[in-house]
Amino acid sequence: MRIRVVVPVTSKECEIRALEQYSAAASGGTEISTVLLHKGPASVESAYEEALAGPDVLAQIVQAEKEGVDAVISNCMADPGVEAARELVSIPVIWPAETSMHVAAMLGHKFSVVTILVRLIPLFHHHAARIGLTRQLASVRAVNIPVLELDDRAGVASALVSQSIRAVREDMAHVIILGCTGMAGLAKSVEEGLREQGIADVPVIDPATVALKVAEALADMGLSHSKRTYPAPTENEIISN
Amino acid sequence: MRIRVVVPVTSKECEIRALEQYSAAASGGTEISTVLLHKGPASVESAYEEALAGPDVLAQIVQAEKEGVDAVISNCMADPGVEAARELVSIPVIWPAETSMHVAAMLGHKFSVVTILVRLIPLFHHHAARIGLTRQLASVRAVNIPVLELDDRAGVASALVSQSIRAVREDMAHVIILGCTGMAGLAKSVEEGLREQGIADVPVIDPATVALKVAEALADMGLSHSKRTYPAPTENEIISN
Amino acid sequence: MRIRVVVPVTSKECEIRALEQYSAAASGGTEISTVLLHKGPASVESAYEEALAGPDVLAQIVQAEKEGVDAVISNCMADPGVEAARELVSIPVIWPAETSMHVAAMLGHKFSVVTILVRLIPLFHHHAARIGLTRQLASVRAVNIPVLELDDRAGVASALVSQSIRAVREDMAHVIILGCTGMAGLAKSVEEGLREQGIADVPVIDPATVALKVAEALADMGLSHSKRTYPAPTENEIISN
Amino acid sequence: MRIRVVVPVTSKECEIRALEQYSAAASGGTEISTVLLHKGPASVESAYEEALAGPDVLAQIVQAEKEGVDAVISNCMADPGVEAARELVSIPVIWPAETSMHVAAMLGHKFSVVTILVRLIPLFHHHAARIGLTRQLASVRAVNIPVLELDDRAGVASALVSQSIRAVREDMAHVIILGCTGMAGLAKSVEEGLREQGIADVPVIDPATVALKVAEALADMGLSHSKRTYPAPTENEIISN
Amino acid sequence: MRIRVVVPVTSKECEIRALEQYSAAASGGTEISTVLLHKGPASVESAYEEALAGPDVLAQIVQAEKEGVDAVISNCMADPGVEAARELVSIPVIWPAETSMHVAAMLGHKFSVVTILVRLIPLFHHHAARIGLTRQLASVRAVNIPVLELDDRAGVASALVSQSIRAVREDMAHVIILGCTGMAGLAKSVEEGLREQGIADVPVIDPATVALKVAEALADMGLSHSKRTYPAPTENEIISN
Amino acid sequence: MRIRVVVPVTSKECEIRALEQYSAAASGGTEISTVLLHKGPASVESAYEEALAGPDVLAQIVQAEKEGVDAVISNCMADPGVEAARELVSIPVIWPAETSMHVAAMLGHKFSVVTILVRLIPLFHHHAARIGLTRQLASVRAVNIPVLELDDRAGVASALVSQSIRAVREDMAHVIILGCTGMAGLAKSVEEGLREQGIADVPVIDPATVALKVAEALADMGLSHSKRTYPAPTENEIISN
Repeated sequence: MRIRVVVPVTSKECEIRALEQYSAAASGGTEISTVLLHKGPASVESAYEEALAGPDVLAQIVQAEKEGVDAVISNCMADPGVEAARELVSIPVIWPAETSMHVAAMLGHKFSVVTILVRLIPLFHHHAARIGLTRQLASVRAVNIPVLELDDRAGVASALVSQSIRAVREDMAHVIILGCTGMAGLAKSVEEGLREQGIADVPVIDPATVALKVAEALADMGLSHSKRTYPAPTENEIISN
Repeated sequence: MRIRVVVPVTSKECEIRALEQYSAAASGGTEISTVLLHKGPASVESAYEEALAGPDVLAQIVQAEKEGVDAVISNCMADPGVEAARELVSIPVIWPAETSMHVAAMLGHKFSVVTILVRLIPLFHHHAARIGLTRQLASVRAVNIPVLELDDRAGVASALVSQSIRAVREDMAHVIILGCTGMAGLAKSVEEGLREQGIADVPVIDPATVALKVAEALADMGLSHSKRTYPAPTENEIISN
Repeated sequence: MRIRVVVPVTSKECEIRALEQYSAAASGGTEISTVLLHKGPASVESAYEEALAGPDVLAQIVQAEKEGVDAVISNCMADPGVEAARELVSIPVIWPAETSMHVAAMLGHKFSVVTILVRLIPLFHHHAARIGLTRQLASVRAVNIPVLELDDRAGVASALVSQSIRAVREDMAHVIILGCTGMAGLAKSVEEGLREQGIADVPVIDPATVALKVAEALADMGLSHSKRTYPAPTENEIISN
Repeated sequence: MRIRVVVPVTSKECEIRALEQYSAAASGGTEISTVLLHKGPASVESAYEEALAGPDVLAQIVQAEKEGVDAVISNCMADPGVEAARELVSIPVIWPAETSMHVAAMLGHKFSVVTILVRLIPLFHHHAARIGLTRQLASVRAVNIPVLELDDRAGVASALVSQSIRAVREDMAHVIILGCTGMAGLAKSVEEGLREQGIADVPVIDPATVALKVAEALADMGLSHSKRTYPAPTENEIISN
Repeated sequence: MRIRVVVPVTSKECEIRALEQYSAAASGGTEISTVLLHKGPASVESAYEEALAGPDVLAQIVQAEKEGVDAVISNCMADPGVEAARELVSIPVIWPAETSMHVAAMLGHKFSVVTILVRLIPLFHHHAARIGLTRQLASVRAVNIPVLELDDRAGVASALVSQSIRAVREDMAHVIILGCTGMAGLAKSVEEGLREQGIADVPVIDPATVALKVAEALADMGLSHSKRTYPAPTENEIISN
Repeated sequence: MRIRVVVPVTSKECEIRALEQYSAAASGGTEISTVLLHKGPASVESAYEEALAGPDVLAQIVQAEKEGVDAVISNCMADPGVEAARELVSIPVIWPAETSMHVAAMLGHKFSVVTILVRLIPLFHHHAARIGLTRQLASVRAVNIPVLELDDRAGVASALVSQSIRAVREDMAHVIILGCTGMAGLAKSVEEGLREQGIADVPVIDPATVALKVAEALADMGLSHSKRTYPAPTENEIISN
């Protein structure tokens, strides 16, 4: 099975990190390839950057289907072009925020998202409303570290543990979702950190890994998004750009 | 007061029609200006076209604020860049789907949207979920006429009446929203058509006019969107395009 | 355009203050008139007073329509007779709690209401449930100052700032609604007070002004409440009083 | 135990019928008394009549508590003054729409209300929203017979059966609530009529009887409405009427 | 009227206490009988014990109907076999969690449940979701005392008062439900304790007593659960045990 | 990876069919084993049978964990003991109704369940409410064929197509879930049947296969249910059976 990870930014190191992380998590027969945007933002931390990334994300997903991959993952918790891409292709297009919220809802009563920046908190509330999981969302919290400073893994993990403890103790979260695909690989450290603080019973979800597993599962089952929900654009459209 | 209407497509006739319609509906002291996209789709009838329109919509709204207008209206029921634009500017950025749904909810128990294409039906359900008005949405129906064929005003009005009657009788709608800004000017004809069919008690909402009145009202009160919900993107972002 | 403000109490100074405030906020061509109740409570701070005010509010609104005004505003966040009045007349009857909650929902993720008395807190939760905006209501807080002691404008503003800060910091409000029409004129002072405390990004809504702008907008568009939701009472009713 | 039924209209025959029906349904030790309004509408079929009935309903309920009754029932599915009365007295004030919807929700998956007039349909949707039972409300249907013509018991029962069948077959109702206290005594006939049509598994609820049983139960347990929800009006209020 | 209380555990003292409590609360003509499980857990404090208790609860409820009782109460806030039993019998089968939540919702804006163990908190959230009362549930709190240690009545009451105060002050509860049928008889002490702490306006609900009163009321009205919701299992089933 | 499928009935042919179906769908490294109940119903088509199956399901799942399997699937859309089992073990316990509803929600706007018997329709509404997906559930329909008559694969597929068409056309479903694990293997036939009827854009979900893929994914990621939601029963419990 071939899965394409679209890294919806322009910074090469994000692509390198993504390739490593997804390859490490892939199942036996899964081949991971990644692609970066030609045009777009260095990171996606606002609806503004989401909008800027959109057109090239679309182009990369269409290209991925042409190259015959079995599923695409947009490597971002925001939604730069994911729903639009589902109109254009027939393969599954995975949005990690959506898959990780649904999987979190399967695992426990309520979940919290611990994301990078306070400014993104309302965005996750909107995501939950859009996909209909508002009731299961205990809270959204932020570590206040921007995407491009996520390299200090120990510091990020420590900040995630602190906010996760508050999510569990104050907001009644039973499951934690790491709120940025750039935090991939930290879930087990955060679980460990929680355990050291006496919280041994809360699963921590890495949204990139969940996205990969859902992509593999859907492709394996021959399932994709409903074209009633995401119908192909009418053919006679003329785009001038 | 100066209000800028961003017509998020590239077809000149859409801009001409918008200028006429908004100017006709404007209050005494309101000056309407319009702007077309340089890059983007001929019409917005899919999430795909929404994504393509996004970047230039943003640029036009930023430009509008620089030119000192008091509010901006994105002339589309879809959402090409509206939420992103609210991050970039301080003036109100009006999304006609949002304002017309809230006004419809003020006027009656439940409303239906009668839009152009069946393919857009789930989109309006998502809009309602996102803004939290799912309970008030009786149904979404479509006349199955694409944007660029809306010029047959009598035919469109007649199709709107037919679908509105079904919305009232079968879906229990108490208010009708015309589901495309390209239907501007038809609300009174549809009300008249309903009256001829014995339905004299259902208001019909023209979303473009409502958007204009809300824009005027917000600008007049000095109110704009919350920057807690739409914070400005962080300054150190570097965009390569 | 002529707009009638029904002041649903019997204290003359409330009427004087309302006339000043609405006249100051009115658009160019709008003529404001006010009317006081002949029978009813000195203020409306309970469902009990709401019920007492009801019959004369109805009479005043029917009279207003006879006199040819274009819209009526009931100058109270409670609902003394508003829904009943919509059955009796064809012009818009504006309920400031309803319009300000919908406008707040347009401006940001969630809003809080800061009202006069703790005893009114459940009432606002019921209002939000009735109009379907429970999800958007972050909290209701109270300054604990009764209507008839709202004359100490500086003291009231200061108390509003204190509670608004708690609404923003503890309840995650992104927009504040002043929870009494007697607080008209204080929105900008509260915004200023919040800014001095480091909260520069939260709009504060004056419900009386919003009610006026919505009344003007609806009358201007020829829109009124759906008679499917508010049908005229059957003619053969005989009332013995 | 003494229970007072306030008949919130002015027609003597409504009081006579209520006295008969409640006395027939009362438990052994329960003594029923009834009272009519001095001022108010002949029937309550609109928010307008609800508002007119309000003040005298309040007066009658306050009087009932002074006379030492254990609970009061407002004999109407509409809400003329019930919530206001709960502020003024400490005994339970029963609103049949509320108690019958909660009991229906205990008995099955979803319920429908079959009321007298189409014009009351949105009112029941609002009641359900206010008390938080929207999800359990399958539909509201009407027999189109006004209160004052409910004397043709066989005709009314037959119309109720017809609408109940549609509620069960088309709207998936599992429980039926008779939507007017004037239909008291017809529940068993409607159940019988449904059984003759092959629907033997749907309970039919008489809201007056349910109100009485809930009144008896609450009084027996020494439970009444929360004064946090319905606090007493502040004492220093001055009412000029 | 004869009411059977099924005590869904195997400890004799639970049955003795239940017989005392229900007999004390029964109305004049009501005869209470109790039955214990032959097989099952000593107490029900987990879904595990709920499942173990299920089969014998069913057998006891079927037996109760055969013996001609008018209604059955399962004496537990958890749900060991209640919904299954409603399929097998035609008499009302009362689940105290369900009836007490509905009655609490009738009495005030929001209620909290104060139960025995922290581990049961999500269970009550699930109960509320299942019966559709999530919006009315302010919070669930626990005293951290297991069922079999509830004999220290003063200690339990004191712990209930402490948690109820937090529910009222921090969670905005207007009504308290005691969250274990083993707490029967403590409601008035908790109300008294709250009053001593300055909270005189919050009703406290004893779920066992409410269950009994609802059982009496339903049996008296000839109402039972809808067989559309709880249809009898098909006859041709063969069970091998 | 080793996955145990607990077939919560006593009919050997159900186990044989399950072993075939799960083995066919398993990923390369996955080893499927199945186990039948010693005590319990021949099929699970009611809450009654669910309750009867519960205790032995628990025993089988505990045994499976002792034998070192990585995840367990309860092969039923009903819930005989699943939530209880999650308390007793640390490995994932998969409930196909839950996983298939969440996956359906990822794939499209709304889904319908097409199950075996009309009597199970409210059960699925309750499942959706419990897991918080009520908004995404378009409808539940039934083919009216009991579990033990599912062997006529062509007849069942044809009935599923008929009901799925109604779900799509009348209930606006965008995704179909087969509502019985005994329908495993029919999803592609139903998709094909829909395509022949002109509905080529609706994915059909086989809940058993989805359960297997989710089980594999969770085990692969080292994720399991939150022990905050499903805490282990207290050790000092004594069970007498």
